[in-house]
Amino acid sequence: MNKAYGQHCPVAKTLDILGDRWTLLIVRDLLKGKTRFKDLEQSLRGIPTNILADRLKLLETNEVVQREYYSEHPPRAEYRLTHRGDELASVIAAIASWGARNLGDGPAFDVIHSGCGAHVSQQWVCEQCGRDVTARRVHFESLRPVEQAS
Amino acid sequence: MNKAYGQHCPVAKTLDILGDRWTLLIVRDLLKGKTRFKDLEQSLRGIPTNILADRLKLLETNEVVQREYYSEHPPRAEYRLTHRGDELASVIAAIASWGARNLGDGPAFDVIHSGCGAHVSQQWVCEQCGRDVTARRVHFESLRPVEQAS
Repeated sequence: MNKAYGQHCPVAKTLDILGDRWTLLIVRDLLKGKTRFKDLEQSLRGIPTNILADRLKLLETNEVVQREYYSEHPPRAEYRLTHRGDELASVIAAIASWGARNLGDGPAFDVIHSGCGAHVSQQWVCEQCGRDVTARRVHFESLRPVEQAS
Repeated sequence: MNKAYGQHCPVAKTLDILGDRWTLLIVRDLLKGKTRFKDLEQSLRGIPTNILADRLKLLETNEVVQREYYSEHPPRAEYRLTHRGDELASVIAAIASWGARNLGDGPAFDVIHSGCGAHVSQQWVCEQCGRDVTARRVHFESLRPVEQAS
């Protein structure tokens, strides 16, 4: 695991958990329904076994992933996203959408509303003007300094 | 720079550019209006100078950042997000929002609609049901296999 950034900022704190190489791709594949170590190893192509184990362990420690045994002899576990992990759909979808728009190839997966099976998209909604502000028309205003964590 | 993942997937391709340590925090600070190397170095606290230079170079090569000289002697540059870079607001906001909800501390910055100065939020909008589907009620469906890039 990389050294933590040590900043009181939700972006830095999130990346302390998710910022290591491979981790966000593991979350992507869990969101796509992979649950078993071997399936993840296969779909991630090229991930070293010990790295996959380390990343899943860190995700479990941070309550993003939950491990459940489906066989005792030999021990075999399934990995599922927790509620907190499910909410990472917004992060992965934002990354996927940026990549599909800017780096060619187009989308590799569709985001579906589980309730009705229809396509969902992420939009910026303005409190004042209503929906669908484009990302180029927003800016960030600091609410507090990004202090160094003690 | 880390080795590229070599996957035909917009998430992996995006992380080939943004997945290295510090890079997303640099984008965060550019979105907050920092433009000069020294200001970025100061706000990022602890980033090694050569790493900041390498990351900015990679962002420039991938047309996420544009470098402009404001002094020739000594050479001093400003870094600004390109259109493509501005669109990363959606990625940083999604990460910030997840962190603020799940890791304590609350938000560190507000996302503002530059047009009217009001707060904007990211929402999932369902084609069929309308707005504000929660992230826990979505799933991902593959449109094509994540093939290994040749």
